[in-house]
Amino acid sequence: MKTTPQCAPCLLNRVLYEAELSTNDEGLRFKAVQSGMEFLREHCRPGADAIGISTGIHRRTYAILGDKDPYRAAKALSNRLAAAEMPRARALLDRAPPAERFRLAVLMAIAGNTFDFGVQGHAVETDDFGAFLDRMIRQGLGVDDSDRIAALARGADVLYLADNCGEIYFDELLIEQLQAMEARVTLVVRGDFILTDATMEDVRRMGLDRKVDRVLTTGSNAVGVSLAEAPAELREALRSAGLIVSKGMANYESLSDAGFRPMAYLLRAKCEPVAASLGVRKGMNVAMLVQ
Amino acid sequence: MKTTPQCAPCLLNRVLYEAELSTNDEGLRFKAVQSGMEFLREHCRPGADAIGISTGIHRRTYAILGDKDPYRAAKALSNRLAAAEMPRARALLDRAPPAERFRLAVLMAIAGNTFDFGVQGHAVETDDFGAFLDRMIRQGLGVDDSDRIAALARGADVLYLADNCGEIYFDELLIEQLQAMEARVTLVVRGDFILTDATMEDVRRMGLDRKVDRVLTTGSNAVGVSLAEAPAELREALRSAGLIVSKGMANYESLSDAGFRPMAYLLRAKCEPVAASLGVRKGMNVAMLVQ
Repeated sequence: MKTTPQCAPCLLNRVLYEAELSTNDEGLRFKAVQSGMEFLREHCRPGADAIGISTGIHRRTYAILGDKDPYRAAKALSNRLAAAEMPRARALLDRAPPAERFRLAVLMAIAGNTFDFGVQGHAVETDDFGAFLDRMIRQGLGVDDSDRIAALARGADVLYLADNCGEIYFDELLIEQLQAMEARVTLVVRGDFILTDATMEDVRRMGLDRKVDRVLTTGSNAVGVSLAEAPAELREALRSAGLIVSKGMANYESLSDAGFRPMAYLLRAKCEPVAASLGVRKGMNVAMLVQ
Repeated sequence: MKTTPQCAPCLLNRVLYEAELSTNDEGLRFKAVQSGMEFLREHCRPGADAIGISTGIHRRTYAILGDKDPYRAAKALSNRLAAAEMPRARALLDRAPPAERFRLAVLMAIAGNTFDFGVQGHAVETDDFGAFLDRMIRQGLGVDDSDRIAALARGADVLYLADNCGEIYFDELLIEQLQAMEARVTLVVRGDFILTDATMEDVRRMGLDRKVDRVLTTGSNAVGVSLAEAPAELREALRSAGLIVSKGMANYESLSDAGFRPMAYLLRAKCEPVAASLGVRKGMNVAMLVQ
């Protein structure tokens, strides 16, 4: 996806957010924001690659802050909130009619995609996540290709590109549904800390690495998937998978022009540019299959 | 007031907002945002004057957009909504015990200060402004120097620095209270279009120019009051007034270090930096006298 005029203030807000998470030193916060402006002035131009700009600005911000993981506490909070919700989420799935179970697991995995601290105009509801989950389920899917996604998943090699911490617990529920359909699941997490994204550390802590067939990483802390930085094994898996499940906006932004098929984008459209690129409205829950 | 790291993304968001208000041309929007980044990179440094940066970036944005008044429609909407609320607001004032009337008029004038489209994280409630006004009145004043302000206003030359369109209707109610206390009121509006701020045009349309003793302007489209651009008459009035009533954040930012006294700041603290500078919490309604 190409960058838009909206991306610049949003990214600059996120730089500020990272600085505020990381330090109380007003001078250092200023330095991070100034460096972010410098970076955006150079790189945020019409036609530029959105995700390259995101990766670049966050890497530079982390370096200036001298902080490998400003979202550490936010990620731990997401994991804790999501883990606490699992008994209820599992019970909801168990009570669903079998024919509706996959769609509900897809919807929950998208609800989990709201664990995304720092997106402008998008608040994470930490006070009553249970009530929020209920509202998400009532809202339902604005784009619902879940039947076609399920048909492709059956017995296939599924490459599952994870996104945020917290969200990864809901991913586990969907992965169980895929496995119940005899899919072999390769889970992909970030190669290093970036934003609130899940890494191998999170997957191991919850034991999800032992439930899937294989865990790969993106090979770096790029936002989304950087093909240039991805291990050969991941590039091969992207080419050969029977179905790719891509969670969240960053994976979409980084892969929307790469041509890998068939690709199921599961996300909540949290900003106008991504919503416009997908042809949906902001705030919609999207399960879109691209074949 | 000095600029803060928070100011940069907020201003850049506002540039984007102005571009979106003004044009559908994505290229022109991009150009405005890029120019905003360029400007911020140059000027938004620790110790820099907050209001100088605001004035500079908005002037540059207006020039790039070729638009003297991107907020035209927003201002008209504010005026319409506020005018429609006046009968109810007057009835509320009439029903208030005389001893409470001034405080209530102050609170309403601050409620009117929420007509401020484009402040990040601050939404103007256009759907049900009446209900919003009721909530504001229930919230009350977080800082309440209204008794001391009233005592100073009695029989004095009051210089009233207006802020936004819409808000100006509520200012009229407070000005009536000041006049009932034998104050002579000089109203000051912006010298030209900037943001959603009221100008002579708005004051004349509502006939407020005929109700006050005198209307001055700031002499330019600076954000707040630029002393360098202010007519001699306004500078003299700032020096000699028995009481200055300063509405809103921009007037505060531009005059907080200028030393004019006694000054009554009436505003809603809509952003962290202004709230911190005033020593209050964000979201508070503030009637603060500085003597």
